[in-house]
Amino acid sequence: METGKYLYFDAAATEMPCDEAKEAVLAAMEEYGNPSSGHCAGFASRELVEKARETVASAVGCAPEELYFTGSGTEASNIAIRGLAKLRGRISKTVLATDSEHPSVREPLKALESEGFQILRLSTRNGVIPDEEIDEACRQPLAFVTVMQANNETGAVYDLMKIRRALADNGNDAPVHCDAVQSFLKIRRNRLPSFCDLATVSGHKVGGLKGTGALYVRKNIRIPALILGGGQEQGMRSGTENVPGIASFGAAVRAKASDPGRFERMERFHDELAEAVRAMGYVCHVPEVHLPNILHIQIPGVRSSWAVNALSAMRICVSAGSACSTKKKDNPVLTAYGLTREESETSLRISFTETADEAGLHSLVEALKKIGEMKR
Amino acid sequence: METGKYLYFDAAATEMPCDEAKEAVLAAMEEYGNPSSGHCAGFASRELVEKARETVASAVGCAPEELYFTGSGTEASNIAIRGLAKLRGRISKTVLATDSEHPSVREPLKALESEGFQILRLSTRNGVIPDEEIDEACRQPLAFVTVMQANNETGAVYDLMKIRRALADNGNDAPVHCDAVQSFLKIRRNRLPSFCDLATVSGHKVGGLKGTGALYVRKNIRIPALILGGGQEQGMRSGTENVPGIASFGAAVRAKASDPGRFERMERFHDELAEAVRAMGYVCHVPEVHLPNILHIQIPGVRSSWAVNALSAMRICVSAGSACSTKKKDNPVLTAYGLTREESETSLRISFTETADEAGLHSLVEALKKIGEMKR
Repeated sequence: METGKYLYFDAAATEMPCDEAKEAVLAAMEEYGNPSSGHCAGFASRELVEKARETVASAVGCAPEELYFTGSGTEASNIAIRGLAKLRGRISKTVLATDSEHPSVREPLKALESEGFQILRLSTRNGVIPDEEIDEACRQPLAFVTVMQANNETGAVYDLMKIRRALADNGNDAPVHCDAVQSFLKIRRNRLPSFCDLATVSGHKVGGLKGTGALYVRKNIRIPALILGGGQEQGMRSGTENVPGIASFGAAVRAKASDPGRFERMERFHDELAEAVRAMGYVCHVPEVHLPNILHIQIPGVRSSWAVNALSAMRICVSAGSACSTKKKDNPVLTAYGLTREESETSLRISFTETADEAGLHSLVEALKKIGEMKR
Repeated sequence: METGKYLYFDAAATEMPCDEAKEAVLAAMEEYGNPSSGHCAGFASRELVEKARETVASAVGCAPEELYFTGSGTEASNIAIRGLAKLRGRISKTVLATDSEHPSVREPLKALESEGFQILRLSTRNGVIPDEEIDEACRQPLAFVTVMQANNETGAVYDLMKIRRALADNGNDAPVHCDAVQSFLKIRRNRLPSFCDLATVSGHKVGGLKGTGALYVRKNIRIPALILGGGQEQGMRSGTENVPGIASFGAAVRAKASDPGRFERMERFHDELAEAVRAMGYVCHVPEVHLPNILHIQIPGVRSSWAVNALSAMRICVSAGSACSTKKKDNPVLTAYGLTREESETSLRISFTETADEAGLHSLVEALKKIGEMKR
C-alpha cells in the first residue's frame, strides 16, 4: 500500500523514499567527509558519490562520466537549456519543444523568448505529437530541441524516437534534451541516449531523497555551467556534493532495477483502478501510450480542489494538476491535451509506485465513491 | 572528540552532522510529501521547511521571508552575484570584492570580468583589509560589493562594518553581499543584516546535511532568479525543496544556538592547540581577528600534501588548503595573506567544532609531532 502515515497516491509529485534509500542516507551521514577532501573521510564520501553515479548512469544508459549530479531536476533542465542556448544561439534562435512542458522547462524557455529566441511548441492533443508537425519542425535550423518523454499530469508518453529520426532524415544536427523526470524507470528498456543527447532525471521521483537531480550530457557536447565555483562535477555544477541525497538516489535506482516485476504490478493497479473509476460513472483520460503509474480521472461536477481537500481529510493524498504548479490558475497542460476548462477543473491525478496494492486500491475507490456521493 | 570513524579536524570543509540534524532527517524521511502539494502530506512537509526557515532566519538576523533555501552555499552566492550584476549592471560595471574570496564567489566574478565588468579586489594581507583601500573603493560608483566575512583557509575575520560605513559616508548605495559560509554561527552576536544586504550561509558547515544552503536578501532588493521553474522559494529558486536537508539545517542551527558555551570551548581548543604546535617548533599563522575553529599551521620542511596523506593513514583528517579547491595548483588565498610559495606548500588547516576535546587534542598533537619527526 502507498502508505506510511498516509494513503499516498501522489507519487508523481514525489515518491515516498524507499527503505534502501533511507539506509543509504543513514550510511552517508556516517561517511560525512567532503568528497573533495584528500583524506580518508573524503575518499569514503567520494566513493559513495561515484558508486551512485555508476548506478544511475547505468539505468540512464550512459557512461558515468556523462552524468552530472545537481540539486534538483529543475536545476538539471535549467543547466541544459541555458547551456544549449549559449552553445547554439549563434547557429539558430529557434528552439523546438512541446506545448506541455513542465514549468522547469517552460519557464527557462519563456526567459529565452524574452531574449530573442523563438520557441516552436509541438501540440500534444490526446497525448500524441502529430508526425507532420515533427517533420515540418525538423526541416528548419534549430538551436536545440527540449521535449519531455512523459507528461507529469496526463501520463502520456511521447515517441521521441520520431523526433530523432526526423532530425537525422533532414541532416539536422540540433542536440536533443529530454526531460525524463517522470519517465525515468517508469518505461521498460528505456535507453535515453538512443533518442537524446541530454536528459534530466530526479532522485525523489524514483524513491530517493528530495534535493538531487542528474543531467546526462553526451560526451562530445560541451555546454557551459550555470553555477560556478570549486569545479565539482567536472566543473558542470560547482558546490559540495549532496552525498546523502546522491547515495539515496543510487540506492533507490538499484532497488527499482532489481525488481523486474514492478512494471507489471503498476500496470495491473493502473488498469484495475481505471476500471473501478469507470464503473462509478467517472471519466478516465488514458492516453494511448501512457505511463503505468499515473491515472488521470474526472469526477463530473466535483471540483478538483474540493476533492483534494476532502480526500486529504481522510488522509488520502491525490493531486489536482501537478504539485509543481499549484499556484498557477489555468492549466496549460490539460488545455493542450484537449480538455475544456470545466473538465480541467474536475480533474484528479492519481499516481503511485510498484508498492501499490489491493488494499490501497480498495480504500481509494471507496473514498472516490464517497466524494462523488457527497456532492450529489 | 571530533570523531565517529575518524579523528576529524576538517570541519571547515564540512562538519560531521550533529545528532539533532540526523534526527531531523529521519523525521523528514517520514514526512515525505511535496511541500507544494495541497494535501495533508504536503502540508506536513511544508511545515518542516517553514520551521527551519524561521530558525535559520533568526540566527542570520533576518525575517523568514528574506531567507531563500538553495542547493548549496555556492548556488546561493551565484544567485546573489548573477542577480546583482543584472540588477545593477547598468548603474556601474565595477564590483568590489577581496583578493581572498572562495571559488564560489571568485569564479562567478571571473565570469563577470569576461563580460566587461571590472573587479576591484581589496587586499587581505595578514588577514586585514586596509582602511585606505576601503575608503578609496567606496568613493566610486559600484554595481555591488561581495566580500567574505571570514576566510575559509586562514580563519581571518574581516571587519565588514567598515565597508558598510564607508559606503554610507560616501552616499554610495551599492548593495553588499557577504559570503558568510565560514563565519555563520562561528562569531558571537553576528547579525549579518547589520552590515550586508545579502548573505550566503550553508547547512553542512554548521552540522546540517550537505545539499542545502540559504541566501538572505533584504526585503527591498529584487534580484532575478538563476533557476526558473515551479516558482518555489518565492520564485527565487525553483525546484522541489530538499526537505530533509532543510530540516537538518534548521535542527543544527537550533542545536548550536542553544549551546552558549560553544564559543569558549572552541576558543580554548584553538589556543591550546596553537600553544602545543608552537611548542613543537612549528609555525602558527593566527590573524589578529580570527575564527575560533580554524588554525592555520606550518610544519617547516614538510609538504602539506604529504602530511595530509600521512595523517590520513592514521585516520586523522586535516586539510591542505581548502577542500573546495584541492585541484588548483597555486593557492591565491595564502599568497594574498602574505605567505611565500614555500610557506603555502607546508601549510595545514586544522578546523574543528565545539565538540573538540582534550583527548582529540592530545591525539592530534602526538600525530603532528610524529609527522615532523618522520621527515627529519
